[in-house]
Amino acid sequence: MPLAFRQPALLWHRDDAVVSGLADRLRAVLPELGCQVGGAQVRPDSDAAADAAVRERLAAEGTDLGIVLGGDGTLLAAARILAALDIPLLCVNLGRLGFLADISPAETFDVLPSILRGEFFAEERLLLEVQIHRSGQVLGNGIALNEVALHKWDSLKMIEFETRAGGRLLNRQRADGLIVATPTGSTAYALSAGGPILYPDLLALVVVPICQHTMAIRPMVLGAQQAIEIELTNDSWSRARVVCDGQQSLPLEIGDRVLIRARERPLRLIHPAGYDYFELLRTKMHWGG
Amino acid sequence: MPLAFRQPALLWHRDDAVVSGLADRLRAVLPELGCQVGGAQVRPDSDAAADAAVRERLAAEGTDLGIVLGGDGTLLAAARILAALDIPLLCVNLGRLGFLADISPAETFDVLPSILRGEFFAEERLLLEVQIHRSGQVLGNGIALNEVALHKWDSLKMIEFETRAGGRLLNRQRADGLIVATPTGSTAYALSAGGPILYPDLLALVVVPICQHTMAIRPMVLGAQQAIEIELTNDSWSRARVVCDGQQSLPLEIGDRVLIRARERPLRLIHPAGYDYFELLRTKMHWGG
Amino acid sequence: MPLAFRQPALLWHRDDAVVSGLADRLRAVLPELGCQVGGAQVRPDSDAAADAAVRERLAAEGTDLGIVLGGDGTLLAAARILAALDIPLLCVNLGRLGFLADISPAETFDVLPSILRGEFFAEERLLLEVQIHRSGQVLGNGIALNEVALHKWDSLKMIEFETRAGGRLLNRQRADGLIVATPTGSTAYALSAGGPILYPDLLALVVVPICQHTMAIRPMVLGAQQAIEIELTNDSWSRARVVCDGQQSLPLEIGDRVLIRARERPLRLIHPAGYDYFELLRTKMHWGG
Amino acid sequence: MPLAFRQPALLWHRDDAVVSGLADRLRAVLPELGCQVGGAQVRPDSDAAADAAVRERLAAEGTDLGIVLGGDGTLLAAARILAALDIPLLCVNLGRLGFLADISPAETFDVLPSILRGEFFAEERLLLEVQIHRSGQVLGNGIALNEVALHKWDSLKMIEFETRAGGRLLNRQRADGLIVATPTGSTAYALSAGGPILYPDLLALVVVPICQHTMAIRPMVLGAQQAIEIELTNDSWSRARVVCDGQQSLPLEIGDRVLIRARERPLRLIHPAGYDYFELLRTKMHWGG
Repeated sequence: MPLAFRQPALLWHRDDAVVSGLADRLRAVLPELGCQVGGAQVRPDSDAAADAAVRERLAAEGTDLGIVLGGDGTLLAAARILAALDIPLLCVNLGRLGFLADISPAETFDVLPSILRGEFFAEERLLLEVQIHRSGQVLGNGIALNEVALHKWDSLKMIEFETRAGGRLLNRQRADGLIVATPTGSTAYALSAGGPILYPDLLALVVVPICQHTMAIRPMVLGAQQAIEIELTNDSWSRARVVCDGQQSLPLEIGDRVLIRARERPLRLIHPAGYDYFELLRTKMHWGG
Repeated sequence: MPLAFRQPALLWHRDDAVVSGLADRLRAVLPELGCQVGGAQVRPDSDAAADAAVRERLAAEGTDLGIVLGGDGTLLAAARILAALDIPLLCVNLGRLGFLADISPAETFDVLPSILRGEFFAEERLLLEVQIHRSGQVLGNGIALNEVALHKWDSLKMIEFETRAGGRLLNRQRADGLIVATPTGSTAYALSAGGPILYPDLLALVVVPICQHTMAIRPMVLGAQQAIEIELTNDSWSRARVVCDGQQSLPLEIGDRVLIRARERPLRLIHPAGYDYFELLRTKMHWGG
Repeated sequence: MPLAFRQPALLWHRDDAVVSGLADRLRAVLPELGCQVGGAQVRPDSDAAADAAVRERLAAEGTDLGIVLGGDGTLLAAARILAALDIPLLCVNLGRLGFLADISPAETFDVLPSILRGEFFAEERLLLEVQIHRSGQVLGNGIALNEVALHKWDSLKMIEFETRAGGRLLNRQRADGLIVATPTGSTAYALSAGGPILYPDLLALVVVPICQHTMAIRPMVLGAQQAIEIELTNDSWSRARVVCDGQQSLPLEIGDRVLIRARERPLRLIHPAGYDYFELLRTKMHWGG
Repeated sequence: MPLAFRQPALLWHRDDAVVSGLADRLRAVLPELGCQVGGAQVRPDSDAAADAAVRERLAAEGTDLGIVLGGDGTLLAAARILAALDIPLLCVNLGRLGFLADISPAETFDVLPSILRGEFFAEERLLLEVQIHRSGQVLGNGIALNEVALHKWDSLKMIEFETRAGGRLLNRQRADGLIVATPTGSTAYALSAGGPILYPDLLALVVVPICQHTMAIRPMVLGAQQAIEIELTNDSWSRARVVCDGQQSLPLEIGDRVLIRARERPLRLIHPAGYDYFELLRTKMHWGG
């Protein structure tokens, strides 16, 4: 029987004994299962050039699966770096919560042979693309699996911004910031700011303000086809920063526009067969408990 | 030029001078515009037989448009009664808030000719179908445009129920009730219970508990293809009632199952050209204000 | 050394083997420690005459301490019945959560001798008194340790009411109900409705609406000296019910006024030395976890 | 009849025509009413030396009333600078919201003679004192009328801190920050972060986390006698900043402790007779609307 994946790459961030121990065992076991193993370190805070170097090397190796060794943060970095390669990711949780990274180290070696045989649950997760526009030029861009957040930065004062969705004015707001999250990100930072939970297969975004000074506000869930545009208005009291997945940030001047769109190709996540999102919500997030 | 609609029916609930005054003017003006005008009273609390009688009469008349004269409550009744006819609805607001009923009486006569000429914004709104199952039998059913709500009834004690979505356990909950709302209903009762706002074109539902005794709970947004099943478990302390759009209710015994599904055919709403949902949110709901 | 308490009364609700087993052991042990033991069943739903009978018997016995065997519900019943006797309560948790009933059965026999010797932490908890006024007459009254709640009853429609605090209009509201809770009750029903947590020694009340249809609402914390008055206004769509601690209820007609006041004498609760409210919040309510 | 105040000082921040126009009229009218008028500019961001200079000058003049010309921000600055002088403040609203600054310019000249005659409503508002401790030394301190807030600063990562109240552990938290607000501040930044409203006469504080990553959290209301201590723990990922009333800030290193206490002497605010807090809540904050 042909293997579902022949050229997995190990992807890690932390350089410690736990990670390297697991990586060594995988480098020993995977060839016995018929695979060639590549790998690369993925850093949450690496720059575009470093990301491109990793991407090119993995592409040259013919990587057809990323095996993330780490926590949700490492997965977020891997998603950003590998999005353009369009290869699926599988995540062994060596971190704290492991809501995305849902395979425990203990079950890894039980689960891998089945996955290589094609017994798995694959799902598509929306990715966000963000661009910063200034005076008609694109000054920066980014990719996010969880959320794109706008934050006041280095200032005691709120920011003032105007949000548009699908070309129409949503509102003019005064707040500490604004979060535009994917369903994946709805259990991450957007949840901290009071957002609802979106089932991961929804083609939708949720817009959640951060500390807006009004009682009359609620999170807003929009179809993913509606591009979001945020402008830091001229009467904003502070500059701001656009932050992708809490890992990469772009400075924002007054007058800049932030354009957030769902990426055409989503991220593919590979889970062991029997994956149950609601069970994760109950056991790891204690939803309804 | 052919008319977009030739056989409108006036639909009203209240029998008062304001409603009959407007109805009289419409009965005078619409024929001048080339239409034949029918009509019927729609009652929030009428029974299935009465609803069927209205439906049959309007079908026999060849009704191709419902013109609702009233508030959001009248529209909800009209949606329930006319869903099976699959005719679009247009709503003149004679009620308090008029979030759904978005044409003011003042602009009605300006706006109608354009709408009859085909200049309008038509949108589809999800409808919910609910069935009560007891010992393998269907005991009752209903239709809702806003929400299906489960409520403890005639009791001081909470109810206990198990919720499934798409066939998998969401949770076992102890609460005063549970709301399953459409995007349309997200600004109605679900909002009162703390839910987010869902843009009306989303094919999604939001599940919001009513006074569940836990801090660890958030509204959950699910794709509309996921059927919701709620079972009033054997250890529930109270009986309950299933309420559709706050207008129709069905009694629920311990052990009963409630099945909630998106209806295959949505409701079509006709708005004047230039309809702007965000503007309604800002001006009528004071969102972000 | 004189005992801090000489005449404890066991107070229970459930008639089961667990309760009677513990009661038997206490009836054996307490006399050895120098006490005379009385006791009575306390029912959440007993009427005023039955409550008075229990109260008189315990008063006649010279009861100077109530030892509640049960869960938080049994403590609420005991508080209502014994408030007029002004004797402190000690609570052994045989229920589910046991947030108020904070002594586990296992530690009871270790802890009781110290408590009888006077080594304990005593605290005062606010009690609420409620009166229903109709056409100048008092129609009913009640006592609550957790909260007095106003609920729509037997109706699909919201109620409309006017709330006054300290004689001034707070607001006119349309909702499913309203909760006026003590600090003790802030972790009970008021929490389910979205209220904050009030440290138990605060002389304050928190007013939390139940499913009010507005975004612009927040719980309101008021000094306990401000009497709360709620009037079910003439344009209310439904009748209502006033519910004390989820156990006792009083019917409310349109036009009735509900007067809620902090009781002059609070309830005294006896905890083992080392009682730590924050620890209970973290371990039993998972606050911040 | 003796005047209630003989030596008012005008206090302003903005140097514009509206402010100076009003100031000129007051400098003309107040002497006719029997007062001597002083004054000083109060800056939200002035340093301790500048604050002391203003304070000394006003003290030397025998100032017995501060008349703030500005918005809530100017009042916050005046409260900080003049707290030590223990003189009452009166506020004419030249700002946007004017929730604290509750006299409109139009009514100023009607209201002032009555106030000088002693016809007013005086209330006491809690003030907070904050100290930063590092290695046993006090590194900085501040005063706040609204709130003391702890913020992550210049970092993409959350901070980790341990909060104690009254000497006992409240919790160890991971969040963007934490707000400790007075009742006055409960309608300001604490409200933006989801806090309840506290009636201004309460001797209580409310502790509200900023974007803590858990569902199981609620604002906590504590008696003002409980000192709050926050320690930026060694495993915090970021440094932080302590911000008083959004105007003054103090840097915080990992390991630093922040001590927040209610100030012994509150601030006195003078309102026109008939002041109604609930009315302000309804009309300016749209509470319940």
